Amino acid sequence: MPQANTNEGTSSLARRLLNGDRRALARAISLVEDDRPEGWDLVREVYPHTGRAAVFGFTGPPGVGKSTLIGALTKARRAAGRTVGVLSIDPSSPFTQGALLGDRIRLTEHFLDQGVFIRSMANRGALGGLSEAALQAALLLDAAGRQDIFIETVGVGQAEIDIIDHADTIVLVLMPGSGDSIQALKAGVMEIPDVIVINKAQHPLTDTMVREIRGVLSLANLDEASSGPARPRWRVPIVKTEAARGEGIDELVERLGEHRAHIAAEGTLQERRGRNLRNEVLAIASARMRRRLEEELREDAQFKRLLQEVIERRLDPASAASALLERSGG
Amino acid sequence: MPQANTNEGTSSLARRLLNGDRRALARAISLVEDDRPEGWDLVREVYPHTGRAAVFGFTGPPGVGKSTLIGALTKARRAAGRTVGVLSIDPSSPFTQGALLGDRIRLTEHFLDQGVFIRSMANRGALGGLSEAALQAALLLDAAGRQDIFIETVGVGQAEIDIIDHADTIVLVLMPGSGDSIQALKAGVMEIPDVIVINKAQHPLTDTMVREIRGVLSLANLDEASSGPARPRWRVPIVKTEAARGEGIDELVERLGEHRAHIAAEGTLQERRGRNLRNEVLAIASARMRRRLEEELREDAQFKRLLQEVIERRLDPASAASALLERSGG
Repeated sequence: MPQANTNEGTSSLARRLLNGDRRALARAISLVEDDRPEGWDLVREVYPHTGRAAVFGFTGPPGVGKSTLIGALTKARRAAGRTVGVLSIDPSSPFTQGALLGDRIRLTEHFLDQGVFIRSMANRGALGGLSEAALQAALLLDAAGRQDIFIETVGVGQAEIDIIDHADTIVLVLMPGSGDSIQALKAGVMEIPDVIVINKAQHPLTDTMVREIRGVLSLANLDEASSGPARPRWRVPIVKTEAARGEGIDELVERLGEHRAHIAAEGTLQERRGRNLRNEVLAIASARMRRRLEEELREDAQFKRLLQEVIERRLDPASAASALLERSGG
Repeated sequence: MPQANTNEGTSSLARRLLNGDRRALARAISLVEDDRPEGWDLVREVYPHTGRAAVFGFTGPPGVGKSTLIGALTKARRAAGRTVGVLSIDPSSPFTQGALLGDRIRLTEHFLDQGVFIRSMANRGALGGLSEAALQAALLLDAAGRQDIFIETVGVGQAEIDIIDHADTIVLVLMPGSGDSIQALKAGVMEIPDVIVINKAQHPLTDTMVREIRGVLSLANLDEASSGPARPRWRVPIVKTEAARGEGIDELVERLGEHRAHIAAEGTLQERRGRNLRNEVLAIASARMRRRLEEELREDAQFKRLLQEVIERRLDPASAASALLERSGG
């Protein structure tokens, strides 16, 4: 009975995972990443044991040193006796790609530490699918007892934000020269994060940049003050770091702790998590509907005919979409 | 018979639209933007008359001067006797917001010209929904006989690229200081466009930037040469402009024309359009499925119960999503 075997396998894997077994964790994340039913079964089984980890999301353009920063934070958290899980879904990250020599030395010291689990997930084309898998992987890290989870994503757009939106604290990492990101913040195209880090801060332009960001933040605060709720307001800190030399890391650890204390105290931690879980349920449902539709259509003769009509300008795209939806019983 | 009235109304609007009537065009785009059934009827009716316009997509971070550049291009194309349609879906664009005085002067000269139709579309939260409406609006401009269509989007991420992916030619606009975008190109996070413009090029760092981009492009070319098809290769030109003074615009017009001739000659124009139309049909179908699901769930007691179970860690998000999909007959 393969069914019984699988169930037994999942349960035993779940037990090992809940005990913090690293190999079980690695296997579990692979199951989720490969979209295997056992992976989803496993998440279902261990889900009651999640919700205890502190989840930090790091985003920012490539090249600003997010991985090095997470490496330095990992070291600091380990020194404080916390277990750490790192999940990188940045295709340009040294965690994901072959690291440069310097990075490799800094990062491998963690690979040998049992208290650190580092995992990168590849960008598999559809960002929806990846984000879905990444969030399940974060739940697995949480269930395995990782106390601090660092999620690394790339980007200055909105799509990538979807992934780290599920973090309790969102950290935007920039460096001197990140003019595009500052423009995006200024224009309201990018949302204001909880903490801003300027890495590689030993640069003559850093202080100009800090002033510019403070200007953006004070405008955003004004907006909030006029329409926002009467809560004690969180003032987004700007932390200057030189992650490669460990500078500014202690201050960053402190600010991250303050943010967590702030959202826990005023109840937004629960509120955020409730909203994020709602969005996650909807995102998973939507991604599955879309995937199912695409699979249905892959070799579908009627779809090919419809599409040919669209290409020949005899049928418009929206009508073709309606025809598809009607057929699949929508 | 309201049905007959609506049809008649649509037909008369369609007739005026096909004759190039600007008020009909404005009304038609509003119908599509508001997601009104008449809007979709109208697109269906005029769709056989589309596919003649040359569609150019402009993307890049806020503040690089995309609107000014499009203004200057519009002037040049009008001087060459072409009619122009501009569609801005950049929430930070002067087309969309109140423009600064200088911009307003430059842009209003076009507002008075009957051969130019400028329209901005607001970002309505869900980028999916907006992108869907924007593409329909582009079809309407095309049907109304606009010969050149310029679509403006913001972003250095992937989400925004989806919109301009439907353009025949994709132009990335940067300026000195666009370090994040160059890093994103370098890391392969952002796709290589067809044409790169460096605006505000009278800056001491412009030439360094051009060299950096050339480096990225030559690496991308190597990748392509090793695996790509044996087609005459398009060499992405880098055009330096000072759009506010009209400098570099003639060269840009020339490069845009060359790109169009290139894709027309080698057949990729038809191939691109076929692929883009396929993606559009799927995107519209997916967006509708998601919207339908969200509407169904807005006041749904069962969904609220499921969600509460997820929040209390008794039911995992993926199982909640499955329960929803099963219920809605998926």
